[in-house]
Amino acid sequence: MKETMIVVYEKPDIYDPIFIEGLPGIGLVGKLAAEHLIQELNAKKFAELYSPHFMHQVIVKKDSTVDLMRNEFYYWKSPDDEHRDLIIITGDTQVPPTDSYGHFEVVGKMLDFVEQFGTREIITMGGYQVPELEGEPRVLAAFTDLETKEKYKHLPVVFREDEGGAIVGAAGLLLGIGKLRGMKGACFLGESLGYIVDAKAAKAVLSVVAQVLNLEIDMSALDERAKETEEILKKVQEMQRAMFEQQMPQPGHEEEDRGYL
Amino acid sequence: MKETMIVVYEKPDIYDPIFIEGLPGIGLVGKLAAEHLIQELNAKKFAELYSPHFMHQVIVKKDSTVDLMRNEFYYWKSPDDEHRDLIIITGDTQVPPTDSYGHFEVVGKMLDFVEQFGTREIITMGGYQVPELEGEPRVLAAFTDLETKEKYKHLPVVFREDEGGAIVGAAGLLLGIGKLRGMKGACFLGESLGYIVDAKAAKAVLSVVAQVLNLEIDMSALDERAKETEEILKKVQEMQRAMFEQQMPQPGHEEEDRGYL
Amino acid sequence: MKETMIVVYEKPDIYDPIFIEGLPGIGLVGKLAAEHLIQELNAKKFAELYSPHFMHQVIVKKDSTVDLMRNEFYYWKSPDDEHRDLIIITGDTQVPPTDSYGHFEVVGKMLDFVEQFGTREIITMGGYQVPELEGEPRVLAAFTDLETKEKYKHLPVVFREDEGGAIVGAAGLLLGIGKLRGMKGACFLGESLGYIVDAKAAKAVLSVVAQVLNLEIDMSALDERAKETEEILKKVQEMQRAMFEQQMPQPGHEEEDRGYL
Amino acid sequence: MKETMIVVYEKPDIYDPIFIEGLPGIGLVGKLAAEHLIQELNAKKFAELYSPHFMHQVIVKKDSTVDLMRNEFYYWKSPDDEHRDLIIITGDTQVPPTDSYGHFEVVGKMLDFVEQFGTREIITMGGYQVPELEGEPRVLAAFTDLETKEKYKHLPVVFREDEGGAIVGAAGLLLGIGKLRGMKGACFLGESLGYIVDAKAAKAVLSVVAQVLNLEIDMSALDERAKETEEILKKVQEMQRAMFEQQMPQPGHEEEDRGYL
Repeated sequence: MKETMIVVYEKPDIYDPIFIEGLPGIGLVGKLAAEHLIQELNAKKFAELYSPHFMHQVIVKKDSTVDLMRNEFYYWKSPDDEHRDLIIITGDTQVPPTDSYGHFEVVGKMLDFVEQFGTREIITMGGYQVPELEGEPRVLAAFTDLETKEKYKHLPVVFREDEGGAIVGAAGLLLGIGKLRGMKGACFLGESLGYIVDAKAAKAVLSVVAQVLNLEIDMSALDERAKETEEILKKVQEMQRAMFEQQMPQPGHEEEDRGYL
Repeated sequence: MKETMIVVYEKPDIYDPIFIEGLPGIGLVGKLAAEHLIQELNAKKFAELYSPHFMHQVIVKKDSTVDLMRNEFYYWKSPDDEHRDLIIITGDTQVPPTDSYGHFEVVGKMLDFVEQFGTREIITMGGYQVPELEGEPRVLAAFTDLETKEKYKHLPVVFREDEGGAIVGAAGLLLGIGKLRGMKGACFLGESLGYIVDAKAAKAVLSVVAQVLNLEIDMSALDERAKETEEILKKVQEMQRAMFEQQMPQPGHEEEDRGYL
Repeated sequence: MKETMIVVYEKPDIYDPIFIEGLPGIGLVGKLAAEHLIQELNAKKFAELYSPHFMHQVIVKKDSTVDLMRNEFYYWKSPDDEHRDLIIITGDTQVPPTDSYGHFEVVGKMLDFVEQFGTREIITMGGYQVPELEGEPRVLAAFTDLETKEKYKHLPVVFREDEGGAIVGAAGLLLGIGKLRGMKGACFLGESLGYIVDAKAAKAVLSVVAQVLNLEIDMSALDERAKETEEILKKVQEMQRAMFEQQMPQPGHEEEDRGYL
Repeated sequence: MKETMIVVYEKPDIYDPIFIEGLPGIGLVGKLAAEHLIQELNAKKFAELYSPHFMHQVIVKKDSTVDLMRNEFYYWKSPDDEHRDLIIITGDTQVPPTDSYGHFEVVGKMLDFVEQFGTREIITMGGYQVPELEGEPRVLAAFTDLETKEKYKHLPVVFREDEGGAIVGAAGLLLGIGKLRGMKGACFLGESLGYIVDAKAAKAVLSVVAQVLNLEIDMSALDERAKETEEILKKVQEMQRAMFEQQMPQPGHEEEDRGYL
């Protein structure tokens, strides 16, 4: 395999779809949000993306079968004129951070593909790493252009104004490269501590995207995962407190401690 | 050399061969198993694979000649209808872990090559890293599809069910990429501590593969190596015990110890 | 995106322009100098360079829009026969240091582009890392050939004679590759401590380049930034002194200190 | 620059030349040997090799001019039938060790080039890293094939028999890839501690190569450098002894020492 390749199972009959991205990243926020959206809309998988820039391994499934790491394209055909057709992408992985060239190659192929279906608008979803978090995670937003920013000014988001800040990976590149192709888009990132599977942040981001798409999304499943997330967070904090107390050196045990470094 | 290249010495007259892979990896399990199989079957080398993705060096032989690092293809023509023709690959190296793109390129070229002979089935062999091991190493199995899993359900193997676990390198990629080309296959990994040349695990894996191929393989040579493996393991454990005792700081020798860090 | 690409907004009517480079590097000296020159000349942006070898991210602006990292080409049309037309390049980034191939590819594309406008001469600007600096930073110079060196011998610069020394990145490669294409050029580097935004060094370099171009450049804005630079430098030195005093171990507190390592 | 390129200044009238390589490596042994040979034979430079796989920098010369890093081809036309025409390559650099693909690409281009002149035989020169060295450095040899080994069995060299040992970089790859193209060759490596400019080892290797080529090479200049090498070695050993004594912790000065870590 010399180039990223897309295996197409079906050519959906969709028109001017919005391309929504939710790939693995900080807190798995984007992936969780995308998976939940796919589930609630009952979106149908129609293509798979494989890349020689992904990790050189296969992943084992519970049924003992294996697959290369991949991204998956789903489509949803809008039932009426109030809603837009959608292409949603999620998957196992992004290109590892050491391979910038691979990131550009893969995102370029994604855009080539969705352009075939007439895509002109993009929404990317992910997590925004914060060192600590109290209360509900906010959703930060950034846009390809001021017209799109204006269109979304009513949303319950915080516009990013951190000049020089970055959005790394597909969530950023899809907008950056899409912009050069005349596309427009927005990126919604939920504040997250980053080291857990953050369903709270995913719910926050998906709520905003649901508003954008004028969809009612039942968040129950995500709520359940969000409660699990809070439990895990509490446990992690307890463990950290315990580890800290354990690390304080005890007078008189100096040599023994050093023996275990 | 800009691409992986295969030098062909002979075009064997084989039909619908099974492609068996045993390249260097954990515990050298796959390589030992493949080498032993080649020896016992008296399989004949018919092609060599070289790659610009391998380490940029030549290897010195005992007779003072040098060669690039390479993989070697052997074939075995079945003597009757009870057995399948085989292509076996083993060699000096796989692509280093920092070059995912290289892994995909090399495995792609391997499959291009064996497809020319009508290959539709693949068996890959290797080691499965475990932190400790008591008794005989088990053989873990994974498959391209449920049909193949069903076909092999009678084997004395443990089906992997570790959802999200990975098989890195050729042993995994051959199945993953092969699958996209309509091929079917199985991967057999012998539990191994990983840091020694593990003939015990190799024997375990090869016994399973021999069953799959309906072959009687004389394991004497591997048994010999397996005994050597156990000796080495015992010695290593003794050394570890001695090192541990030596590391405990002795009271009064603090400054001297630090001088040698 | 598989190759570095240049998006052209306008084809300026310029003749035999001098190509001036000031991209991010040591002390951001080159970039500051280029930005100031662009500002004072009111040079006009006419093209943007994007590359799959840049970091795989977009940068957030204060107005919440995002862009890929890029370099920008500006042109200035000389008002009379005493001055030369100019193409000036500056931007967000250079290729990261781990990707030598990317550096060559990007600079090659830059030269392909400016050659279309008849460019035969190059001036590159940057910082020269020094461990400490007293008084005004000197400007070090190097050239593609002895004829150019002779042409510039009257400048208030120090000719580099450090045989085997290197000029890394675009500032060096533009001259090295340009040379192979029959172009001529000079590189002017201002001594800089490197870890701050060094407007003093930028001013020193730009003063030399202004002389080369026979331009009067108002340095006021750079002067302002230079004063800020000196303030920051003083603060950093104070912080370093304070940190040093804090690091000295206090007798009797040995165990506590080690506890925080 | 997308590929390694060779700039040709002259097409020498040579026949069936032996290609001799001496590029930077361990102890700079190969480079020193090649440079001395070029000097003594008064060989003429006729081509330069540049590569996007070399470090992305230019090197400053004492006269303030700069050049990309490069390799240089020299030729020597034999004066009679007793001697062979020669192509000698030396230069600033090899491809960095992190870029295996680059090594193969560059060596492939070198061989493409010298094949144009009818090259069928290769001699590579370099250093062989040893931890310590007493007396004169030995010259270790390895070959593409047994016929060549037989041809050189009379030389005062030690045939390498370290099965599995490696020769990294151009010195090895030229033989490995050359072999695939039907060429024959030998590699001569002088034992060297590796961290100094080792003129002693260079002299040892060049003496052997001179014998192979049936040339009388005046070694005076290398002898001079060899004496300098010995002086440097003595100084380094003294420094190491002094540093070691300084490192031993002095009782009562524990806190001060740690303050300077």
